[in-house]
Amino acid sequence: MSRFSSFKQLRAACLDLPGPDQSAADAAAAREAQLTKPPGSLGRLEELTAWLAAWQGRTPPTLGTCEILVFAGNHGVAAQGVSAYPPEVTTQMVANFTAGGAAINQLARTNGARLRVTPLDLDRPTADFTEAPAMQEAEFLDAVGIGYDQVTGESDLVVLGEMGIGNTTAAAAISGALFGGGARFASTGTGVGRDGFGRKRAVIQQALLYHSDVLGDPLRAAAAVGGRELAAMMGACLAARHKRTPVLIDGMVSSSAVAPLKALRDDGLDHARVGHKSADAGHEFLLQELGMRPLLDLGMRLGEGSGAAVALLVLRAALACHTGMATFEEAQVSGKFSS
Amino acid sequence: MSRFSSFKQLRAACLDLPGPDQSAADAAAAREAQLTKPPGSLGRLEELTAWLAAWQGRTPPTLGTCEILVFAGNHGVAAQGVSAYPPEVTTQMVANFTAGGAAINQLARTNGARLRVTPLDLDRPTADFTEAPAMQEAEFLDAVGIGYDQVTGESDLVVLGEMGIGNTTAAAAISGALFGGGARFASTGTGVGRDGFGRKRAVIQQALLYHSDVLGDPLRAAAAVGGRELAAMMGACLAARHKRTPVLIDGMVSSSAVAPLKALRDDGLDHARVGHKSADAGHEFLLQELGMRPLLDLGMRLGEGSGAAVALLVLRAALACHTGMATFEEAQVSGKFSS
Repeated sequence: MSRFSSFKQLRAACLDLPGPDQSAADAAAAREAQLTKPPGSLGRLEELTAWLAAWQGRTPPTLGTCEILVFAGNHGVAAQGVSAYPPEVTTQMVANFTAGGAAINQLARTNGARLRVTPLDLDRPTADFTEAPAMQEAEFLDAVGIGYDQVTGESDLVVLGEMGIGNTTAAAAISGALFGGGARFASTGTGVGRDGFGRKRAVIQQALLYHSDVLGDPLRAAAAVGGRELAAMMGACLAARHKRTPVLIDGMVSSSAVAPLKALRDDGLDHARVGHKSADAGHEFLLQELGMRPLLDLGMRLGEGSGAAVALLVLRAALACHTGMATFEEAQVSGKFSS
Repeated sequence: MSRFSSFKQLRAACLDLPGPDQSAADAAAAREAQLTKPPGSLGRLEELTAWLAAWQGRTPPTLGTCEILVFAGNHGVAAQGVSAYPPEVTTQMVANFTAGGAAINQLARTNGARLRVTPLDLDRPTADFTEAPAMQEAEFLDAVGIGYDQVTGESDLVVLGEMGIGNTTAAAAISGALFGGGARFASTGTGVGRDGFGRKRAVIQQALLYHSDVLGDPLRAAAAVGGRELAAMMGACLAARHKRTPVLIDGMVSSSAVAPLKALRDDGLDHARVGHKSADAGHEFLLQELGMRPLLDLGMRLGEGSGAAVALLVLRAALACHTGMATFEEAQVSGKFSS
């Protein structure tokens, strides 16, 4: 039996959220001010450390145990020719994750992070959402619950990644459902080409029209035009909030997947940061709607959590400075302004 | 005796540069195309790997031995009140580097990179360049030679960093000398405040007026309004080119220091990448003049090579993907487009 029994119960869980530990954030900021550097000169690195402290509820924060959670799903809408790759690639890539051959495997190793891959019924794609809800309520809640249960609360940070042929179409549809103007969120994805891009935009418009009656409800919308891996990511992000685990979101798909948490409650993603701005233009529109500024902009558009995993290296750098640097007093450096 | 005996001899060395190994870059790109990801989906990570290959002259490139070279100098112009900190801080921070307490020490450790700090006559500041050349020819060439000799050719990559109270004023003056419009390159530096900022702009304008007769010559200009640590960085960057070692430039000071190499020869910095865009607005103007796009934009403005050291983590991520990922064939993943 799933952890969530109804949209209503899940909505209640999404509205009942702990806030940040402001005293931990303040303590981190107070230490930053004593370190041997001009105030604020480490820029966002300083803000990131305070954010980690606030959501882990301790100073200094730690990044000893980081987990990269990758969820995989298949999409009925792939039959509409919205992807450059056949749906079998989802399963093939999950095997590649298991064998250690994908980009995210290398990035997990570079980070010393654990990679956990959760395939969701790959042999049973969601329904084609141009003509039916992608998932029924129970299917959706199952996927959310599976994602929720992947976050144990024992990690210092969780990266959310995904794999699913067709899922940039689902991502754009969710974003359009939540924030309006569906086609602007469409992307060329992993290389669908010009024809495919037109098809994709049309498919998104068609889906949003078909499901117009549920678009006002973020959770019903996510069930109607989303996907299992996206639902699981939302569940994982929600669990991370309940368990006070900071989250690094990846690119367009990852951001769309968790967007309902922001739509339901304005501070619903305050425990998360976006690791990387996708090369796909739709992500910029979505980030504006979410009011989130990504850490990196390196032209990546792979998914798998890869952009967030690179950003995790920046967090490690921030924390290394925060914990390892000497204070002005320890180093006998003059911290006083002369002018 | 210095490695360089005259401006003329140094200029000849700056004009006699090896080019990239295009076959190594092509081999890296060919491997990228076979890896289990859509073509180009790792964005700049793919370009970085090809760049490393081109300048190391091998595929795959390696990052086993990376060195962070930090040069420190003191500036006569500091007497003009252009910095928030007293000049003693340069020496105090060098001691902090030695003791392991500065930001760059933590970032070196995070990277597994070696940190080498070279103080240049800290007890003998350069002349105040509002009323004399900062360095005479011989002094300048000495500093360039010291920097040159720090690059052994045995490193896989070199990061260039600096420390020097007053050196953002020298950096802005060099940039103004090379590219015109001096005051636009002025920055608030490490926190000089509003009054200090106005003073700094005035000092830069005054210096460029005073030295107007040498501004057409990049090397003479660097001697007239630069500093010893900046000259050493230019020397190190030149040596890296001669020895085929890729370089990561840091922020405003680091970029200004090596800018004469670009002014002398348009491809003079092709073996270098800019790690981080400084929070100081002047750096953006300089990057436009150099035609270089920084890897990171995290609001840092510390110097020491810190931004470049964070960017080195991105290079490590890029290389890990390049060398560790499976090919489509190895992983039996369908790389074929379906549409």
